[in-house]
Amino acid sequence: MNDYSKKFLPKKSRGLPGWYNRVVQLAELADYGPAKGTMIFRPYGYAIWELIQKEIDSQIKEKGVENAYFPMFIPESLLAKEKKHVEGFSPELAVVTIGGGEELKERLVVRPTSETIMYEAYAKWVQSWRDLPILINQWNNVVRWEKRTYLFLRTSEFLWQEGHTAHATHDEAWEMTRWAMNMYTQVYRDIFAIPGYVGRKSESEKFAGADVTLTYESLMPEGKALQSCTSHDLGQNFSKVFDIKFQNRAGETEYVWQTSWGLSTRSIGALIMIHGDDAGLRLPPKLAPVQVIILPVDTDSEKLIGFSKEILLKLESRGVRAKIDCLEGERLGFRINKWELKGVPLRIEVGEDELRDKTVTAVRRDSGEKIKIADLSQISRVLEEIQESLLTEASELLNKRTLGVEKYSEFKQIMESRDKGFISAWWCEDSNCEAKIKEETKATIRCLPMDASKDGGSCIYCNKQASYKWLFAQAY
Amino acid sequence: MNDYSKKFLPKKSRGLPGWYNRVVQLAELADYGPAKGTMIFRPYGYAIWELIQKEIDSQIKEKGVENAYFPMFIPESLLAKEKKHVEGFSPELAVVTIGGGEELKERLVVRPTSETIMYEAYAKWVQSWRDLPILINQWNNVVRWEKRTYLFLRTSEFLWQEGHTAHATHDEAWEMTRWAMNMYTQVYRDIFAIPGYVGRKSESEKFAGADVTLTYESLMPEGKALQSCTSHDLGQNFSKVFDIKFQNRAGETEYVWQTSWGLSTRSIGALIMIHGDDAGLRLPPKLAPVQVIILPVDTDSEKLIGFSKEILLKLESRGVRAKIDCLEGERLGFRINKWELKGVPLRIEVGEDELRDKTVTAVRRDSGEKIKIADLSQISRVLEEIQESLLTEASELLNKRTLGVEKYSEFKQIMESRDKGFISAWWCEDSNCEAKIKEETKATIRCLPMDASKDGGSCIYCNKQASYKWLFAQAY
Repeated sequence: MNDYSKKFLPKKSRGLPGWYNRVVQLAELADYGPAKGTMIFRPYGYAIWELIQKEIDSQIKEKGVENAYFPMFIPESLLAKEKKHVEGFSPELAVVTIGGGEELKERLVVRPTSETIMYEAYAKWVQSWRDLPILINQWNNVVRWEKRTYLFLRTSEFLWQEGHTAHATHDEAWEMTRWAMNMYTQVYRDIFAIPGYVGRKSESEKFAGADVTLTYESLMPEGKALQSCTSHDLGQNFSKVFDIKFQNRAGETEYVWQTSWGLSTRSIGALIMIHGDDAGLRLPPKLAPVQVIILPVDTDSEKLIGFSKEILLKLESRGVRAKIDCLEGERLGFRINKWELKGVPLRIEVGEDELRDKTVTAVRRDSGEKIKIADLSQISRVLEEIQESLLTEASELLNKRTLGVEKYSEFKQIMESRDKGFISAWWCEDSNCEAKIKEETKATIRCLPMDASKDGGSCIYCNKQASYKWLFAQAY
Repeated sequence: MNDYSKKFLPKKSRGLPGWYNRVVQLAELADYGPAKGTMIFRPYGYAIWELIQKEIDSQIKEKGVENAYFPMFIPESLLAKEKKHVEGFSPELAVVTIGGGEELKERLVVRPTSETIMYEAYAKWVQSWRDLPILINQWNNVVRWEKRTYLFLRTSEFLWQEGHTAHATHDEAWEMTRWAMNMYTQVYRDIFAIPGYVGRKSESEKFAGADVTLTYESLMPEGKALQSCTSHDLGQNFSKVFDIKFQNRAGETEYVWQTSWGLSTRSIGALIMIHGDDAGLRLPPKLAPVQVIILPVDTDSEKLIGFSKEILLKLESRGVRAKIDCLEGERLGFRINKWELKGVPLRIEVGEDELRDKTVTAVRRDSGEKIKIADLSQISRVLEEIQESLLTEASELLNKRTLGVEKYSEFKQIMESRDKGFISAWWCEDSNCEAKIKEETKATIRCLPMDASKDGGSCIYCNKQASYKWLFAQAY
């Protein structure tokens, strides 16, 4: 049994990693697995993933994308077909060399992503324009080797969805690439309450095998950026290698145009880091497995428990995810700490006063504010307010920590300070400048914002002509 | 593009495996993966799995079981802790020996099932009776090495759910073991329309590490049994090895009592085999991704397509999964073949007559019967009738192919014949008789039916005293 009292939780303001590792375990979101780099998604953490899945899955299906499942074992020769792709992933592969007690003739890679194994099949399935588009998504586990686990954020095995589409024209593929990023943007803002910048990756940072990579970049509290999901315009790079051809309406043979896009359980790490405070998690209502916790002051009182159940039923009938916690012998203070730590957006305490007056007082986890609730139908509105308020708070931080910078000396100074964040600066698009900046400041190019307008300026590093302002930050 | 005409589909009656492999691919349920023993779940096949998941997931959650996710890599030493368990699984393991470009110090097994990795964590999480019961389920992929793929039925990697619970008493654990098997039984009968026998496995056939294994045994058309899911009473076998202890209310330390239970994508293989016919699949409506297919006779007629859309909207508003197929230039006959092959329960053809009379004629896939539909609200009832009718048909076959046998000569004769199936016979519970019968007839003991009553008879093999009649069959 956990002791949830705050003495076991270091202050978030005193150091993010210490607070983060502790809160993830105390709140029973996750635990370490026995093999290096692995983690266990405990029910409370996995329930958040299920809520994310439900939202994304419904949007994907509405777009006409269907779910499927491809093998996780990829023969080494298949992975090696696209040259840049295999170079990008080689250092982080897990390899099966023994199967059924025998050394394998061809070693099998555990999928780090599924482009190669899916596209070999696409080549078999596509012959005519009638077979296009192919719109397939997978919910699965992938492996990219890590020696040190950072729960949710950096693990050898993680869960994600990966969409993989094939189209007759580049226009269609580009529309899909942007559709996926728009969908993610809406999900991050409206469901995660996490603001961020949408833009295009530089050549050196884009996905191994893509023509264009779009990214959603959010800001963690210590001023580091997190690449929160990506959507790739793969052009014809894979279709030419895997020979995915079709006959168009005119009877000519063409290669298909492809996209891939994914969002992973890494997103839960961002959720915890961005919204949490010294008392624990603060979950946005839309991703809270429990939205309202009802605490009878005295766990032995049948009357209080009866009234609590009345409240529970009324909330559930309105579609609110609510729960009563009256585990025998647990003091009220203990239970308050527990559910604050677990980040439940609203807490209702039920005592003799409430029972007598038939009223309900709710405490907001985000602000600590106490609200007299005259009618339980108000609860949904309060939950919406909490959702918005968390987004506003995070957006204010993002704005405050995004600076336009003209001089490299200032750039360096900011990246060394505690108030670092995103820097918007002119860049000449020469990869040498990019590499030098990274070497000297640890800041990488995060993206060229989608709404950036072409203009003229001097590169922050070399002073040569630059067309756009790009976003820089240190990153996970 | 597939050609769905029947010339490419061998008759089911002429040989099950030839028909099966072909129909699975022609109906676009699945395909072979590039590595031996692996398969691809195509969208149409995966959609069936999603319907199965939805049903089981909701029943599991109603019981209070929560979903979680544990790592798929299990250190070899951990798997080896429970002796019988590792012996049972050793011959079929896939082993990762290289990670991140380096030879691993300890090799990692890809989970064949998750008892060991989950129970090591349970030992950390359980201290007091307050921490019990632990009720956790996983939806994941597991690997048990196979050299030859039999799509859905026998593949190295498959998908399943595995429930793993820990309780304070054996009574509670046994209740959970039976609850899971009852839930599966209801799902198989009411959702899959697949009848079967529920019973206890013999000592030699039970799960490696269980005290008691319950099984659901169904009958495939060529007279072989398929173990369709299992539920295990694990007793304290694992808790003693993994040291999962708790303090009871009296302050004494006890080992927990455990269960595990699972149902896999193998079930889809049974679904295809049992219900399919010479024209292709026949899907029970509750597992049909498309329940009603609407075919405008002429794909160029805007009027017919307009009327088809009216029908579609009305069906969708009633919760029916319906779809229009009017792909440009595909003849009606071609489309009829396609959707018969794909096993859609009801087909509606929309031509000039229907448009004029504003009527609908539906054709049942199970019986070929044509039904005049006066009011679309009747469709749901017709779908229910199809569901029931498929179960009745399968139940009749099961009953016909289950024989009570007293003499071993007769037993052998039946197992050599084309009309083989289940045999109910006395068995003395000596594993030597079991082994001899298997050697001489290929029949194994499938189960002791739950409703078997204790009585007296002579063992079918050795004539010694036997207390129960057990079910025998050849099996997958």
